[in-house]
Parts: sequence; C-alpha cells; structure tokens
Amino acid sequence: MNKAVAFAPATVANIGVGFDILGLALDNPGDTISAEFSDTPGVTVAGIEGDGGKLPRDPNKNTACVAGLSVLRAAGSTQGVALTIQKGLPAASGLGSSAASAVGAAVAVNALLGEPLTRDQLLAPSLDGEAIASGYHADNVAPCLFGGITLSYGIEAHQIERLPIPRGLSLALVTPHVEVATAMARAVLPKEIPLKSMVKQTGSVARLIRAIYTDDLESMAAAMEADVVVEPARAHLMPGLFEARRAAKAAGALALVISGAGPTLCAVCASHETALQVVSALEMVYAELGLGCTARAASVSEQGSSVQVSEGA
Amino acid sequence: MNKAVAFAPATVANIGVGFDILGLALDNPGDTISAEFSDTPGVTVAGIEGDGGKLPRDPNKNTACVAGLSVLRAAGSTQGVALTIQKGLPAASGLGSSAASAVGAAVAVNALLGEPLTRDQLLAPSLDGEAIASGYHADNVAPCLFGGITLSYGIEAHQIERLPIPRGLSLALVTPHVEVATAMARAVLPKEIPLKSMVKQTGSVARLIRAIYTDDLESMAAAMEADVVVEPARAHLMPGLFEARRAAKAAGALALVISGAGPTLCAVCASHETALQVVSALEMVYAELGLGCTARAASVSEQGSSVQVSEGA
Repeated sequence: MNKAVAFAPATVANIGVGFDILGLALDNPGDTISAEFSDTPGVTVAGIEGDGGKLPRDPNKNTACVAGLSVLRAAGSTQGVALTIQKGLPAASGLGSSAASAVGAAVAVNALLGEPLTRDQLLAPSLDGEAIASGYHADNVAPCLFGGITLSYGIEAHQIERLPIPRGLSLALVTPHVEVATAMARAVLPKEIPLKSMVKQTGSVARLIRAIYTDDLESMAAAMEADVVVEPARAHLMPGLFEARRAAKAAGALALVISGAGPTLCAVCASHETALQVVSALEMVYAELGLGCTARAASVSEQGSSVQVSEGA
Repeated sequence: MNKAVAFAPATVANIGVGFDILGLALDNPGDTISAEFSDTPGVTVAGIEGDGGKLPRDPNKNTACVAGLSVLRAAGSTQGVALTIQKGLPAASGLGSSAASAVGAAVAVNALLGEPLTRDQLLAPSLDGEAIASGYHADNVAPCLFGGITLSYGIEAHQIERLPIPRGLSLALVTPHVEVATAMARAVLPKEIPLKSMVKQTGSVARLIRAIYTDDLESMAAAMEADVVVEPARAHLMPGLFEARRAAKAAGALALVISGAGPTLCAVCASHETALQVVSALEMVYAELGLGCTARAASVSEQGSSVQVSEGA
C-alpha cells in the first residue's frame, strides 16, 4: 500500500438534550484525508485544502496529525506518514470539524498500514487527536468513527453504543457565517445546575432514547428540544436561533436544536422533501437577518468514516 | 354495585439512576382497598388494618381518602364512600406506600361508581392523594396505576410512558426495620449539582433505557447503579447499604439500588432462583448487623393496580 484515502463525515453532537453524550453522523459534508508514506518520521502535513489557511500545519497542534501518530504508535510502526487534508466542513461551526479530521486521519493511516487496528481500536487515537482541539469528548468522535446515532457514556469503546436510526429521519442544517469557538460555548455553561433541572434533563433524555427505539419521530423531536440546561445558556451566542426555529417549524420541521457548540442549527424532519423545504426557509431567515449562511439537507449516515481508496505500490 | 375492592402494588421508584422519573410495579406486596357507599358525604375511613395505628383517619390527611374524593369529583358524583384499607406494605419504607393507598382508593372508588373514569383519568386523582404525603411526583403513582416499568417526564398522563420489561428480570427486596421519612431523604439531597454530574447521570439514564429496549440485563443493572447524585447523598441514611450490595452480588445479583427514598434496597437478578438466593444473603446481612428486616423476591407486575371484587347490590 502506498496511499490510503478516508472520508470522515460531519457530526451533530448533543442533538439537543443529550449534552456530551449523544451524537449522529451525517451523510454530508465531510473531510477527505489522504495518507502516504514519507521519509519524515512521525505524521506530517503534506497539504491542507479548504480551511482558508486557518488550521495549524504544526503536527503537534493538528488534530489529524496527532490522531495519525497515535495510530502509528498503537500499531507499533516506525514509518513516517504525510497527510493531505481536504476540509469539507468549516471549523468552529458545530459540525465536528476537529473530530472529522482526527477520525479521518486515524482511518486513513490505519488503512495505509494494512488495517492493523480494529475500528474499536481507532477510538483512542481519534480521541487523542480531538483532545487537542476540545478535550476528551466522544460525542463527535464516536458517531464520526462508528456512524449512526451513538450514545457515549464514557470514552472507552465499550462505553459507546449504537442506537437505531428512526425511519424517515431527515435533517436540515444551516450554518450562519459566524464562528463560535467551542471554548467560548463551553465557558458560558453553568458549572452547577439545580437538581430539578437534572430531573427534567434525565426525563427528556430517557424519552429521547425511548422514542428512538419506538420509531417515534415526533416524540424524539420534542424530547431533543426539551433541553433546560445547555440551550438556555448558549442561545445568545447563536444568531437567529429563535427565528430559525419558528421558520423551520412553519416549513414542517418537528424540532430545531443547536448542533454541537453551534452556530450550526439542526432541524429534525420526517422526510427528505420536508428537509428541503426547511432548508429554503432557513436560508430566508438568514437573508432577512443580513447574514450569510450555508444550508443543506442531510440524512444520518449508517457508515461513519470509510476508506475510499487504498492504492497498492 | 355496592362494594368494590382494588389491589394496588408496591413500587420501586428511581430504580437507581432514574431519580423522580423511573419506577416499576412489583407483583407483591400491595395494599387492598375496599370501597362501599356510605351516608356520610365525601370519602371517609371505615377502617385501616396493618398500619400499626400510624396512618391518619382524618379524610383530609389520608392519601386514600383524598384520592377517592378526587375521583368522586371528577366523576361528578355526590355520593358518600367509605374505605377499608388493608395495608400490605409498610409506610416510610421506600416501597410507595402512600402511592399504593392513593391509587388503590382511586381504582376502587372508580369501580364502585361503575368505571366512569378511564385508567388515564385516574392519574390526576391518584396524584392528588400522593401529593399530601410527598408532593406531586408520579414515579410511584405511575407504575402503581399502569403497571410495568414507567418513565414519567411530567405528571400528565401523556407524559408517562410504559417501557418493556426485560426478559428474566427478577428482584430481591429487603426492608430493614428502620423508618426513613421521605421528607428527610429529600432534605439531604443537594439543591445544585455539578454540570459534570448531570452529564454522567444523563449518560447512565440513556444507557439504562437502551438496555431495557435491548433486553440487556447486565447493562441495565450497571446503569441503574451508576447514580452519582442521589445515592451518594442518601447512603448514610441506609443502614447496611454497602454490606447488602456486596452480599447480594456475591449471591449472584447484578446490582443493588435504593428503592425510592429507602430504606428498602432492591437487588436486580437474572432469574427468580437467583433472587431467592439473594433474599437469603440479604437476611444474613441484617441478622449480622443486629437489625430486623423483611426480605422477599418479586417480579415486575405487568398489570399494576387491579379491581379484585365488584359486588352488585
């Protein structure tokens, strides 16, 4: 093997009420990461496209390089690898950009080495990469790596569980062209919350998991939106949140929540057709607010990250 | 109709990590409540057996009478009803004693009137009765009324959902002979909790609901026990908690949690045979501690409260 290419999808963490524990993988957009052997030891950056020059080229500060190096170490390899990163998704947008780069690099480097590690064994290296951007959290990394809707009640592979994807679930996503740094979005969260809020939050999370297992999209959507802790603290950082929610629902969406740390918003719809109508409605909202945005319809990806190309010598 | 008798089962609220939202109905023990027409208006107490004289005979302070009166009002009846209450379960033991009396009275009075109210419509009257003992909480009332394992994310009937009963689930219960007042057990809870604890708690609740839907008793048990908020605050009020947990597990239990506000402890087992062995082990624990106790094996009751006798004139 002398080249391997992996696709790592955007992810929606939290999906509303599931702060730091739930996430889902999208079928688009995503990062594409190519790994090739190199004479330079460790994992280095051969090139980055599509980031507007914002991502660090220093391997110690680049999530993809850190994840790739962690794979090399776990596999006991002393070879050098160079990565070419095509960013398909914007940084600091709430779509799991750092997780996608980390997971994509882990999958690509593992493929280049001939798959010495299992998918489960790629979790820790992926988290190592993600950690330099936002600490050890699996809520984006897990769905990006494993696909589908994931529950992470810890950061070990056995603490991550796949949930079924309710029939018909379609999403409409809008990313207004403002950046919300994850660190800032974390800083506004309360350090402590009332016990009563915990009761409400656990009740809504329980309702959400039940709704997922019973294929009840309306209940799922209502439960996602019933977040009494995180959204209230972050809402002021999300331009157009309430206008977008109103417009999305008027266009047929069942709910709208903040994707990860925002500012991307994620609307839950019962069909792809509705999702397309909601996309148009969301574009109108930001046009009226005089703010640029990128909006798209998406489905949940069963697959997560995948090896696209493995080229032999 | 001139007499109706209802059986209302004991219930285990919280089942560990699901504080104030989860509960389950047991097939034994329970309260048996008889309702007969009376010339005295409203709902009065004809007799109470098995309470050691502790329950109030004043209709305004008796959960059964308050629930029964609420049924009369909801049904638009002006008849008088007298209740005979046979307490099968001890008060202040964490087995939903006040809820059983309230629900049993609601079901019995409704049967006496010829079933004017649906099961869903009996929720509000049952909660009215429970409320005078411990406020408006559905975590005991819901399983007592509807049976099975229930999720209550509110106190309206549409906010209460039945969860499946995992195959093989058997319980061992032990009630040490000390009283823990619900008010006291609530007073020791923290008013605020760290956000990090909420993340752990929501993660464990999500895992618990998933385990219930996937028939995974081991994961269910582990999730139930992963309570980082309520058990740590209440453990000191529960004599023998840690000894009981150790002994129960040595005898084959998968987990042991506080039932409701305690002091009853509830061990989760994968078979009735194991539950019987755990019962013996738990009796040994309290014998060694020099404390009397009542221990029993039980299953989850599908049915909840039921009308046992309806005698026509």
